Amino acid sequence: MNLDIRFDFDRRKRIGLVEAIWGADKSVDQLKRISKKVLNNNEVVFITRINRVKANYLLDLYDDARFYEAANCLIIGENQNKIDTNKKVAIISGGSSDLPVTLEAQLALEIYGVYCQFFIDVGVAGLHRLMSQLEEINKYDVLIVCAGMEGALATVVGGLLAQPIIAVPVSVGYGVSKDGETALNSMLSSCSPGISVMNIDNGYGAAMAALRIIKSIT
Amino acid sequence: MNLDIRFDFDRRKRIGLVEAIWGADKSVDQLKRISKKVLNNNEVVFITRINRVKANYLLDLYDDARFYEAANCLIIGENQNKIDTNKKVAIISGGSSDLPVTLEAQLALEIYGVYCQFFIDVGVAGLHRLMSQLEEINKYDVLIVCAGMEGALATVVGGLLAQPIIAVPVSVGYGVSKDGETALNSMLSSCSPGISVMNIDNGYGAAMAALRIIKSIT
Amino acid sequence: MNLDIRFDFDRRKRIGLVEAIWGADKSVDQLKRISKKVLNNNEVVFITRINRVKANYLLDLYDDARFYEAANCLIIGENQNKIDTNKKVAIISGGSSDLPVTLEAQLALEIYGVYCQFFIDVGVAGLHRLMSQLEEINKYDVLIVCAGMEGALATVVGGLLAQPIIAVPVSVGYGVSKDGETALNSMLSSCSPGISVMNIDNGYGAAMAALRIIKSIT
Amino acid sequence: MNLDIRFDFDRRKRIGLVEAIWGADKSVDQLKRISKKVLNNNEVVFITRINRVKANYLLDLYDDARFYEAANCLIIGENQNKIDTNKKVAIISGGSSDLPVTLEAQLALEIYGVYCQFFIDVGVAGLHRLMSQLEEINKYDVLIVCAGMEGALATVVGGLLAQPIIAVPVSVGYGVSKDGETALNSMLSSCSPGISVMNIDNGYGAAMAALRIIKSIT
Amino acid sequence: MNLDIRFDFDRRKRIGLVEAIWGADKSVDQLKRISKKVLNNNEVVFITRINRVKANYLLDLYDDARFYEAANCLIIGENQNKIDTNKKVAIISGGSSDLPVTLEAQLALEIYGVYCQFFIDVGVAGLHRLMSQLEEINKYDVLIVCAGMEGALATVVGGLLAQPIIAVPVSVGYGVSKDGETALNSMLSSCSPGISVMNIDNGYGAAMAALRIIKSIT
Amino acid sequence: MNLDIRFDFDRRKRIGLVEAIWGADKSVDQLKRISKKVLNNNEVVFITRINRVKANYLLDLYDDARFYEAANCLIIGENQNKIDTNKKVAIISGGSSDLPVTLEAQLALEIYGVYCQFFIDVGVAGLHRLMSQLEEINKYDVLIVCAGMEGALATVVGGLLAQPIIAVPVSVGYGVSKDGETALNSMLSSCSPGISVMNIDNGYGAAMAALRIIKSIT
Amino acid sequence: MNLDIRFDFDRRKRIGLVEAIWGADKSVDQLKRISKKVLNNNEVVFITRINRVKANYLLDLYDDARFYEAANCLIIGENQNKIDTNKKVAIISGGSSDLPVTLEAQLALEIYGVYCQFFIDVGVAGLHRLMSQLEEINKYDVLIVCAGMEGALATVVGGLLAQPIIAVPVSVGYGVSKDGETALNSMLSSCSPGISVMNIDNGYGAAMAALRIIKSIT
Amino acid sequence: MNLDIRFDFDRRKRIGLVEAIWGADKSVDQLKRISKKVLNNNEVVFITRINRVKANYLLDLYDDARFYEAANCLIIGENQNKIDTNKKVAIISGGSSDLPVTLEAQLALEIYGVYCQFFIDVGVAGLHRLMSQLEEINKYDVLIVCAGMEGALATVVGGLLAQPIIAVPVSVGYGVSKDGETALNSMLSSCSPGISVMNIDNGYGAAMAALRIIKSIT
Repeated sequence: MNLDIRFDFDRRKRIGLVEAIWGADKSVDQLKRISKKVLNNNEVVFITRINRVKANYLLDLYDDARFYEAANCLIIGENQNKIDTNKKVAIISGGSSDLPVTLEAQLALEIYGVYCQFFIDVGVAGLHRLMSQLEEINKYDVLIVCAGMEGALATVVGGLLAQPIIAVPVSVGYGVSKDGETALNSMLSSCSPGISVMNIDNGYGAAMAALRIIKSIT
Repeated sequence: MNLDIRFDFDRRKRIGLVEAIWGADKSVDQLKRISKKVLNNNEVVFITRINRVKANYLLDLYDDARFYEAANCLIIGENQNKIDTNKKVAIISGGSSDLPVTLEAQLALEIYGVYCQFFIDVGVAGLHRLMSQLEEINKYDVLIVCAGMEGALATVVGGLLAQPIIAVPVSVGYGVSKDGETALNSMLSSCSPGISVMNIDNGYGAAMAALRIIKSIT
Repeated sequence: MNLDIRFDFDRRKRIGLVEAIWGADKSVDQLKRISKKVLNNNEVVFITRINRVKANYLLDLYDDARFYEAANCLIIGENQNKIDTNKKVAIISGGSSDLPVTLEAQLALEIYGVYCQFFIDVGVAGLHRLMSQLEEINKYDVLIVCAGMEGALATVVGGLLAQPIIAVPVSVGYGVSKDGETALNSMLSSCSPGISVMNIDNGYGAAMAALRIIKSIT
Repeated sequence: MNLDIRFDFDRRKRIGLVEAIWGADKSVDQLKRISKKVLNNNEVVFITRINRVKANYLLDLYDDARFYEAANCLIIGENQNKIDTNKKVAIISGGSSDLPVTLEAQLALEIYGVYCQFFIDVGVAGLHRLMSQLEEINKYDVLIVCAGMEGALATVVGGLLAQPIIAVPVSVGYGVSKDGETALNSMLSSCSPGISVMNIDNGYGAAMAALRIIKSIT
Repeated sequence: MNLDIRFDFDRRKRIGLVEAIWGADKSVDQLKRISKKVLNNNEVVFITRINRVKANYLLDLYDDARFYEAANCLIIGENQNKIDTNKKVAIISGGSSDLPVTLEAQLALEIYGVYCQFFIDVGVAGLHRLMSQLEEINKYDVLIVCAGMEGALATVVGGLLAQPIIAVPVSVGYGVSKDGETALNSMLSSCSPGISVMNIDNGYGAAMAALRIIKSIT
Repeated sequence: MNLDIRFDFDRRKRIGLVEAIWGADKSVDQLKRISKKVLNNNEVVFITRINRVKANYLLDLYDDARFYEAANCLIIGENQNKIDTNKKVAIISGGSSDLPVTLEAQLALEIYGVYCQFFIDVGVAGLHRLMSQLEEINKYDVLIVCAGMEGALATVVGGLLAQPIIAVPVSVGYGVSKDGETALNSMLSSCSPGISVMNIDNGYGAAMAALRIIKSIT
Repeated sequence: MNLDIRFDFDRRKRIGLVEAIWGADKSVDQLKRISKKVLNNNEVVFITRINRVKANYLLDLYDDARFYEAANCLIIGENQNKIDTNKKVAIISGGSSDLPVTLEAQLALEIYGVYCQFFIDVGVAGLHRLMSQLEEINKYDVLIVCAGMEGALATVVGGLLAQPIIAVPVSVGYGVSKDGETALNSMLSSCSPGISVMNIDNGYGAAMAALRIIKSIT
Repeated sequence: MNLDIRFDFDRRKRIGLVEAIWGADKSVDQLKRISKKVLNNNEVVFITRINRVKANYLLDLYDDARFYEAANCLIIGENQNKIDTNKKVAIISGGSSDLPVTLEAQLALEIYGVYCQFFIDVGVAGLHRLMSQLEEINKYDVLIVCAGMEGALATVVGGLLAQPIIAVPVSVGYGVSKDGETALNSMLSSCSPGISVMNIDNGYGAAMAALRIIKSIT
């Protein structure tokens, strides 16, 4: 029985993006085989949701493998699809608990050569923290806003700044906000106009949405 | 078969509050009988969620009945339990669609002699509207915050002001915010400390929670 | 009691967008007062979710009021904030039942001077309808994809085209897809990278998200 | 107290299918007793959702026990109810994460002597992977489509091919697609006609539905 | 603006099924235009979820239009894709409240020339009603089981008969069974093997699933 | 096509209960035919969830038809299955809004000859109303407790009295208690031991559960 | 700080039932202190949802402590409240996975001296297993029906037998039936009359409901 | 990359409350850095949802660190914002399983110098336990009511006492009450007037809401 993985190598040609590898449900064996295949095809390996145990197997095999534990991401090789752009992305987040999601977004943008800056702990319970950095944030071309709990940060940013805004709900919190669904619904219901939303914890997806915009700007 | 309504006349003695009458599920006949009973007992009739059709029957019967259509409330007689207080309540709201809920809260407070002031359309999509009135709002002793959509207003107010805050989610919006559940969960998940929350659209309940506080202050 | 509406006239300055008026929960009286205020301020009146009954009152008052019944939108006056751009938007939709949502998006873009083209009835149950127009769609700068039922259209488009994609779930269908939540969750879970999502039926919001992108491109 | 298990041995006679044993909630002891009983009755033992720890106990007891770890299935003995047919089933799947479900379906079909072929990693984010194998898939008599995330694969296949299609939602993904419910609802809402759906992760059930069809064809 | 509907006329060639028209969200105008287009293309018009008011407009226009009010369906013309088969379908249902769904399924099968027989009011609260007709039902090649409430009928039938079974949950009931979701989940969780399930109230879809099977048998 | 309704006349023999007719989804025509059939079979017609419009058709036809509008029930003829018992049922309820449900339960018991007594408006917000009647309630053999909102009445009664208790959640309230699901879950979670629960608004079912108990006592 | 547990010793007097101890959330320390208190008060200790680790501490302390691992229950001492009755309970269950719940019910009844008989593996997918034991089951006075998956067993039993029926949904299954909610809703929606329902997995509660009935019979 | 945490030190000035640190999602490293920062700023460190493993690292570092394991809280240093008040809070709770939540509330109040008294195990299944302490509870100024299961305690207390009441649903229970959502919805739906509600398990938030009230009283 041939169960070989059929990677979407054509994607680069079609939409200029390489396929990331979702590490959570894959065995070490599957990750090894797929990594080999991707590298043979001269593409960068970008694995998300991979823990240290699985990562170690790949770190042993590949000298240039880099594991970013706080982001649960592993990268092998270099992306051949970098974008030549001076556009840059601000990643704004309400608390340090959002870190894994924001870091995943940053890594996914940087392998394409897009510069990112973090603005963290600017939660709306202490508005002044956001206000004091507004002018600085305004220098960035695309804004990614990550927030858990009630996700109000997206609305406040969206009412103050004119850039494209990609909101990412984060699964931090407890009780009714436990799984990130409150943040998700809150962002979708935002009374600030034109905020678009990604799946819960989808830092990688937010990066790809930002890339689509940056590529169309550049 | 005796199906006579057993009104909680003892409530006034126990907790100093009179029972309001939920008009939505009651027939005109039931409303008439209960009103008569309450008035005979020398208490004020306060009916919530009553529409004009039902209200007209009572307006015909009682000269001093007053129907507040925008609030869906009807009042007959005077409350004998007024509170002698100079404490006052600010009712803050994100949009004019929250009007029925905010008006219900105001009426319920005013029959107890508590002064209320509205601060409406101070939604966080345009923060400056709230900011410019902050100093004025700060003069009030208890804050009731009503908001639909993503309910972020409660969080922003809660991060800026120190008073007791009672948040009321409102069932305005569409899609994921249609029934007010997004606003409810958002308020419960607020990252601002010490915001307590009422059921969706429960303006009356917010007034009673404010009354409990004001009575303990006074 | 002063319950005057506080319109966010400052929004134009802050983020270059004017406030739209949500017509569903407002009385004719509220709509009249707010329209007058907006027009006095020399801004365009753009009312969404307004039915013919309410619209007629405003059509009687204002000669240049235009009611778009299929979109449930009413416009009075001209927008002073038009964008000078040659960028254009494709609105792609799975079925004629999505029409109100797609038309709301189109109107909201056109009052800013952005050209839109519809590609409707390209549902994935008959892929060839989409495939045969792919080259044409590819000429547009931003793609808005509206779909009800299972919302698979967003995924298929996202796998074939590189532009920024804004997905709008539509509340058509029955059973598990009745309220648009299946389409919403499906779009959020899309295996195509970088698709960002709006609230259910939020054509207006999709237009604003597209505008944010177009303004940053232009 | 007699708590002996009452296996449905009569099922073979009634509907031509033997009862599978759900291993997840059973103790090793229960599995041993039930296996013995089934083998004594000259039927095949087919245990689903069994992990390696439990499997080892049965592998030690029975020489002809076979454990399929990737499918979480264990088989002992031979099925006496094989179907003499040249009809065959295609198992189509969106990603390698669906493997446990697809393998469970395959094993369940093969113990009845029905030939299966896998078509994996044909997810709709890269349509060409499906398109290039369409002609080959068309040679099969019944199609089982397994997909997690947004489950759009079922709709696309259903719009292109005329065979009976049994869709199986898979619990892979995160955020709103975490438990497979988005894929389930998406498949139920499919705009392609005549797609029938199984419970989440129910590869075994899909095989039985395929068997019912194949038996009626043969 | 050209908003002409793009009917999937190619579907007949691809999968041998014609497209049905979902009448619920379409205006009379849309229904007229689409009907004309379909008839010009020499296909049968099959409209589901159409009420009498809309139907009358089409009955006025087309002499051979037939409106089936209890099924909420309207048919114009004759299907050119009839299947030459002696296979037949039993439509089994728990109560007379399921009638609209069962009738929709029957009409959809009969325009393809497939014979159907109803077995209604065989709910499991009175098992004998089902038992006494079991032998008769067993003469049919495919079974469609429609049930609301707790949907137990599908499980009982599935444990007694060997044919392919397509279960359709029906939105009758109240409280927790109001929208058909309890019947849906119950059918998906059935402990009888190989029952496949359609969306709530999707009689048409069940017919199409049956057709796919019958075509592969024939 | 023969769509004649198959009434479960055998039920009386099996479990001593006659079948009630669910009026909500049935046409006048269906109600007429089924009533005739039931009366011909010498059983009582008991229709629940029937409105006045439908009821009038049957009142016109049958002289001994009785319509109980507040209960939405219609009865024709006399029950031949009365139980000869001196056991009696207390129907306890939190508010007058629960009336339709409590009346449905009472009618369903009284056609079997079981005596019921109402204890209404004994909601736990005013505990004294319940406490003052406790001794009287204690004289009854089975207790049916109907409550909407948070359904706490069932828990309080269950902690004070030893009889069999059947709890019926009622769909009164708003916001999170709108559809009765909060009362349902609250009753299922009761910390008082041995409270069993019916579907939301299922007064008829509660009566049948009480009957099963009374028949086993008698 | 005095955090001593206040056991409801008065319950025995009020409703004739002793309080059971919910072991899941309590520490070993809490369990020790509460057990001592209960035994000092001359009542039986009945702990539910207790695992072996915690149980061992109490087994070490009390010679007459008995741990029933399959039921997750521990009993110390003898109940002084036994009921002198010849009434008996049948515990009917669909599969061996329901064992913990059925055993909990049995233990809770037997400490009151009520005799129980198990009828397990009588799931409706193989109806004959139930049918062949119907006459035997009919000899019992109260029926407790435990079932997971789609919970159809309650409906079938309820349609065949006249006794009081207490249905207990069990949290076995996967996908949509994973947490027992499908079985719960299915039982609440049963089309068999007079089935009352307990919380998911609440075997103890079912026993208490049965006791309330038996005490009123005896 | 600078990812330093931006603590909201300004909060003390704005609303008189210091920021608590949510320990659940933070690494030991993050907790160390943030604690150092807070102490340097001369504020008290108050960490919630911290387990013993993480706590030990901080206990090693700081001599005056105090870990309250039953509350999952750790405190370092002294609060400079104590309130000089003689107002006091009663924490009322239904069972010993609510202990972690009630203790979190107590600690959060006591670092501000507010005296608390526990009234635990006063669940409404044994009303007398509450009744016998009513007079004592009535001496307190603010009432915090914590309850899991069906949360009826809040309603009963709210109907008997006039103080401000803050209800905290607790995630104890199983089946439908497993995650605390039933208690939450029950409290929000309370028929007692003026009960305001916190997020599930949010003992800390309840304390802050009480503080807001006490500060406005004092």
